Amino acid sequence: MKKYVSALVVAAATLSATSAMAQFAKPEDAVKYRQSALFVMQQNVGRIAAMVQGKAPFDAKVAADSAAVAEYMAKLPWAAFVPGSDKAGNTKAKAEVWSDAAKFNAAADKMQAEMAKLNAAAKTGSLDAIKPAMGAVGGTCKGCHDDFRAQ
Amino acid sequence: MKKYVSALVVAAATLSATSAMAQFAKPEDAVKYRQSALFVMQQNVGRIAAMVQGKAPFDAKVAADSAAVAEYMAKLPWAAFVPGSDKAGNTKAKAEVWSDAAKFNAAADKMQAEMAKLNAAAKTGSLDAIKPAMGAVGGTCKGCHDDFRAQ
Repeated sequence: MKKYVSALVVAAATLSATSAMAQFAKPEDAVKYRQSALFVMQQNVGRIAAMVQGKAPFDAKVAADSAAVAEYMAKLPWAAFVPGSDKAGNTKAKAEVWSDAAKFNAAADKMQAEMAKLNAAAKTGSLDAIKPAMGAVGGTCKGCHDDFRAQ
Repeated sequence: MKKYVSALVVAAATLSATSAMAQFAKPEDAVKYRQSALFVMQQNVGRIAAMVQGKAPFDAKVAADSAAVAEYMAKLPWAAFVPGSDKAGNTKAKAEVWSDAAKFNAAADKMQAEMAKLNAAAKTGSLDAIKPAMGAVGGTCKGCHDDFRAQ
């Protein structure tokens, strides 16, 4: 029951954050919006990845702050994949984003769920807790890029 | 006293959100990061501005959701104005961002404070409450662009 309620809360929070994004003046703005949100997210995730990989010294506070921003940013891009933005701007989105929307949405949900777990792990201040969560996040990034982003 | 404590809380929250951003692999990433955060913020503010100007129908939920995202995004750009990023990428930042950092930081703080007020106003669901808050936010955008961004 607790898990069920948590899922509802997460769904409501996601809906709340994304419903605000449904309108763009032009398709190029939608492309730039999702790319901007993903870039800010990626920079924060990358900072934690560098610690996990030993390329940067572990800083528990920076990791926790970065994970919090990454989790928030992870909610924003999806509502910007609006119809008509499939060929706009410099998008790399494949047609499958729209033609297989159910799979795409599931991948987006999965990424957000793993990002929430990374944030929870980062809050513990333990690099050992962060490592597997970071691996799971990285897996969702790669999976979605493989299936839905042109190289 | 209450006001003083509130100011401390805001300062701590800002510091927490921005301290995670202090590191970038290269100056171009810092430029792209601050521009990305500002673009996501601007799109959300613009959605509310359109309602205030009568260019879009007032939707209290969209306004509230947009204001919440805008307030969050408003915290992120500042730590990306790192030394060495003054001429990187396609930045339009003037030298005064760094040479008059105290004034720039005050402008950034003022914008965040007005954005928090806009978020509070949007939460009331009243367009009449949103209008003056939106005007104040717009003023901080323009003021900072006039002083610190090349045209």
